[in-house]
Amino acid sequence: MPEFVSLLDDKAAEAEAVIKKYLPAEEGYQKKVIEAMNYSVMAGGKRIRPVLMMEMYRLAGGKNLQLVEPFVAAIEMIHTYSLVHDDLPAMDNDEYRRGRKTTHVVYGPGMATLAGDGLLNYAYETALKVFYCKDELTPFDGDISDRRAKALEILTRKAGIYGMVGGQCADIEAEGKAEATEEELIFIHENKTAAMLESSMMIGAILAGADKDTWDNIEQAARKIGVAFQIQDDVLDITGDEAALGKPIGSDEKNEKTTYVTLHGLEDSKAEVKKLSDEAIEILSKFEGADAFLIPLVTWMISRNK
Amino acid sequence: MPEFVSLLDDKAAEAEAVIKKYLPAEEGYQKKVIEAMNYSVMAGGKRIRPVLMMEMYRLAGGKNLQLVEPFVAAIEMIHTYSLVHDDLPAMDNDEYRRGRKTTHVVYGPGMATLAGDGLLNYAYETALKVFYCKDELTPFDGDISDRRAKALEILTRKAGIYGMVGGQCADIEAEGKAEATEEELIFIHENKTAAMLESSMMIGAILAGADKDTWDNIEQAARKIGVAFQIQDDVLDITGDEAALGKPIGSDEKNEKTTYVTLHGLEDSKAEVKKLSDEAIEILSKFEGADAFLIPLVTWMISRNK
Repeated sequence: MPEFVSLLDDKAAEAEAVIKKYLPAEEGYQKKVIEAMNYSVMAGGKRIRPVLMMEMYRLAGGKNLQLVEPFVAAIEMIHTYSLVHDDLPAMDNDEYRRGRKTTHVVYGPGMATLAGDGLLNYAYETALKVFYCKDELTPFDGDISDRRAKALEILTRKAGIYGMVGGQCADIEAEGKAEATEEELIFIHENKTAAMLESSMMIGAILAGADKDTWDNIEQAARKIGVAFQIQDDVLDITGDEAALGKPIGSDEKNEKTTYVTLHGLEDSKAEVKKLSDEAIEILSKFEGADAFLIPLVTWMISRNK
Repeated sequence: MPEFVSLLDDKAAEAEAVIKKYLPAEEGYQKKVIEAMNYSVMAGGKRIRPVLMMEMYRLAGGKNLQLVEPFVAAIEMIHTYSLVHDDLPAMDNDEYRRGRKTTHVVYGPGMATLAGDGLLNYAYETALKVFYCKDELTPFDGDISDRRAKALEILTRKAGIYGMVGGQCADIEAEGKAEATEEELIFIHENKTAAMLESSMMIGAILAGADKDTWDNIEQAARKIGVAFQIQDDVLDITGDEAALGKPIGSDEKNEKTTYVTLHGLEDSKAEVKKLSDEAIEILSKFEGADAFLIPLVTWMISRNK
């Protein structure tokens, strides 16, 4: 699907322009940490989360991109901070990411720790700029009537101990164990990976004026996408092409890692990916125009071979 | 001043009860990171920032403590995350703090990194609970009319690259240099130390309904307190009593560290502490009732001998 790839490139470039606009200027006595932050954010990637957020905003009827832009930048800063800290010697100790030296290799582990902290904090500083946007938002009958505050709440929750940080913790804990249970594995997938996809898509819909039922459905779809994405990762570790993946296959077996495939076998795992993917697409099909880009994007994310 | 000390203990206990109320339950597959977070928050300390926030809220006319409580808990979580990351092997590599093993010694550096991230994130998740408090707040004529959002903006800004993280970066950078300039030194003091005192006091006043002039003045006073506190630290490194301080004196000279004292001498440094302290107290004296606790607290913070 070369047409889709070209469309994705355009959407990623659009998101990247927004992200760049919100990066802090590299100046002052704190210049070094800002350089390290910007180096990390500009290390590439498909900008999946920002693209999903902007697309969901449009599909849910949003007309004023200014309103969603602070969150578009913020979600990528949060995603980036998590990579910077994950790569630290105290965590995964990775020296390269996407062919580029990781932040701690270039700036040292102390400055990389600080750059991650700076990014996480600046994400919220940036998201709060939504309050300067004078667009009139429809209130809704929730516990928090202000949609901006609701979007912030979801951003913090899905990034934290009841989201990504929680999933990272469970992942570290599972590594130290002989065998992880299926419940534990699904918890890790749902929190480490799906949570940030959920917030990306939910925030787009909330700021566009969607009602609670709609964003609950979007949350479900995003969760299915995240879990399917991770099971596909486990499948590729067995069936994948080393050249396409850019990493050796069979590493899970070698590391005696419990995965969805070791628990259920290859065929059932593939079937589960298909099932989750179909369910997510069914939910998203209700949005007019979803077949132009959002559904191909979801299909591409899940049915990748690398 | 034994009376003051007993009053401070009471206020610290009051703040600690609020903080505890907002700590996350230690359960789920992410239990370990939550344990590490709570271990770090409950490691003691005088809860100066929460106490300053609550006191400023009351002095500025605030009547509903529920409104300020989420921020009271949040400011201590942010302060704690900064200590947890500062203590990491990649940063200062400290094994003890207040006589207790640091977080990375107990939980390992990976989990401690994650606990710091979890705390910083949960601080904002907690502060956002202010939107559930139905108190009617007076709007004001600023760029952001909602006082809750304004308080959040200040919380993020003072903790981040234009506040504490910025100061930490400049501090790391200065260590690697032969000589730091006075401007650089003041930048470090203002950001690494003063910024979080500023936000504590400003947020208390903003949520109590103070006008912008008032909180600008409070910002100035808090900045003076923070800088005076740090210069006093430099003074104590020369004149202090090792037993009272609990650490060897003369370490700045030994480490060839540029301090306010090495730049201006001992007498001028003491005079500067006195000047800044007097100016801060003059500003704060305008609040009725400040002499009962806030001014003694500021005096105690600055004129300490340990």
